Amino acid sequence: MTDPLWYRAGAQVAAPINHRAAQFGDGLFETMRCDLHGQLPLWCWHRQRLQRGLVALDFPISTLSDIDQSLSHYLKQSAPCQGIKLLLSRGEGGRGYGYDSTMQPLLMLQSFTLPAPSLSPLVITISDVTLAYQPLLAGIKHLNRLEQVLARGRLQKPWDDCLLLDADGHVVESSAGNVFACFDGQWLTPDLSRCGVEGIARRWLLEQSKAQVTDIAAADLSQAEGLLICNAVRGVQWVSRLDEYSLPTIRLAQIQQWQNDWQRLFIGG
Amino acid sequence: MTDPLWYRAGAQVAAPINHRAAQFGDGLFETMRCDLHGQLPLWCWHRQRLQRGLVALDFPISTLSDIDQSLSHYLKQSAPCQGIKLLLSRGEGGRGYGYDSTMQPLLMLQSFTLPAPSLSPLVITISDVTLAYQPLLAGIKHLNRLEQVLARGRLQKPWDDCLLLDADGHVVESSAGNVFACFDGQWLTPDLSRCGVEGIARRWLLEQSKAQVTDIAAADLSQAEGLLICNAVRGVQWVSRLDEYSLPTIRLAQIQQWQNDWQRLFIGG
Repeated sequence: MTDPLWYRAGAQVAAPINHRAAQFGDGLFETMRCDLHGQLPLWCWHRQRLQRGLVALDFPISTLSDIDQSLSHYLKQSAPCQGIKLLLSRGEGGRGYGYDSTMQPLLMLQSFTLPAPSLSPLVITISDVTLAYQPLLAGIKHLNRLEQVLARGRLQKPWDDCLLLDADGHVVESSAGNVFACFDGQWLTPDLSRCGVEGIARRWLLEQSKAQVTDIAAADLSQAEGLLICNAVRGVQWVSRLDEYSLPTIRLAQIQQWQNDWQRLFIGG
Repeated sequence: MTDPLWYRAGAQVAAPINHRAAQFGDGLFETMRCDLHGQLPLWCWHRQRLQRGLVALDFPISTLSDIDQSLSHYLKQSAPCQGIKLLLSRGEGGRGYGYDSTMQPLLMLQSFTLPAPSLSPLVITISDVTLAYQPLLAGIKHLNRLEQVLARGRLQKPWDDCLLLDADGHVVESSAGNVFACFDGQWLTPDLSRCGVEGIARRWLLEQSKAQVTDIAAADLSQAEGLLICNAVRGVQWVSRLDEYSLPTIRLAQIQQWQNDWQRLFIGG
């Protein structure tokens, strides 16, 4: 990863000594993919999720135009075909949890090399980390991510990723992506109104797949005829095995089509 | 607050550019009070809670002796009668949630002026922020604190603090302290096995009050004959009003005794 650049109110500033993302996870982030021209083709969707996050966390809504300005500055000097990490902190100051309208949000931007597209399917398991219900924070990509950190930390070989369930045994997401499952030709993806992150690739794939948003019992996944995980950096990934269950290949061609369509958003062709 | 000092493996280092407390709230903290000699009389209890946090978050357990070393270095050069904030981050590195055993935890230490002891009682309300059940993180003082930030942000005048409930309507804690309530001469304090922070002042007061740890329905608080909030910085604070309910003064003398006993831990006499 490159060293981060920091911005406040649209202007570049020195790295903050002490800010609320580090103290309380008080902020938001986005992980995005640049195209051949160094632009972010899905920025409008990342921006909309940021906006929902600003509202949920009671950040000044004017922060959004500051982000536009800073990001524009940043992208002009960064290389194409990279990943961009954007992190927004409520700002400096305050030992306690309280905040006030004088706090100016701080924006961090940095670039990273995109992982090579993986052609091998994912083999995944079910995590014993259960996601807590918190509707006030559901859907947004905030910085309180200990559940995901714990799930990832418990992941053992040979598993590439794991599914996280809620307290009622419904699938919510994977440790770093959203989940789609196909039953009898109909794609489904979990309802995320109580926990989970509404991913950008999920939003794109909702349109492509005409998936239905609903509760999915983990116990039913052994009947699935297709299973995939998606996120904005890696795109769409086919799951070939969930614990003991080997998924059939009946949906593989469809998933590969989506993989190609997703790639074309960034590299054209 | 003073500028923070940073340590890694017991040795002072430059402030990290990018670390996991800021990225994911991946860490722990303690807020502690020094005595007249610049020592931390309750360090052993803070240390025990840190140890439970290290285990819960799968940090290297050797971190504890590094913390001892760094804190000893820090206290030698800091003034007495201050507050000390200790923050532990899993370390630098890693864009994703995953971590590995090569990551070295980073410790931040800084001092702050203690708030003047408040003689006026607290008037408090009940927050509409419900705490999520997450037994894997309950009790420890980790850095995922958006629930508390939201609760504090919603607090309006004239309220000094608010009670946070769980999804079943039980009292868990206040926005920045633990809660004790007295019924028919028996003190009770909430069970924190599913959410909440096990405070150091709570631990001290459990011994003093012989309180019973149990579920407390918020609805029952209008029958309480005593209510208090405690934390390691402000000590014990009497609650005189909860929303429309004015608490009787029958337990006030007892609470004032605890306030004095708590003070004596730090200033002698």
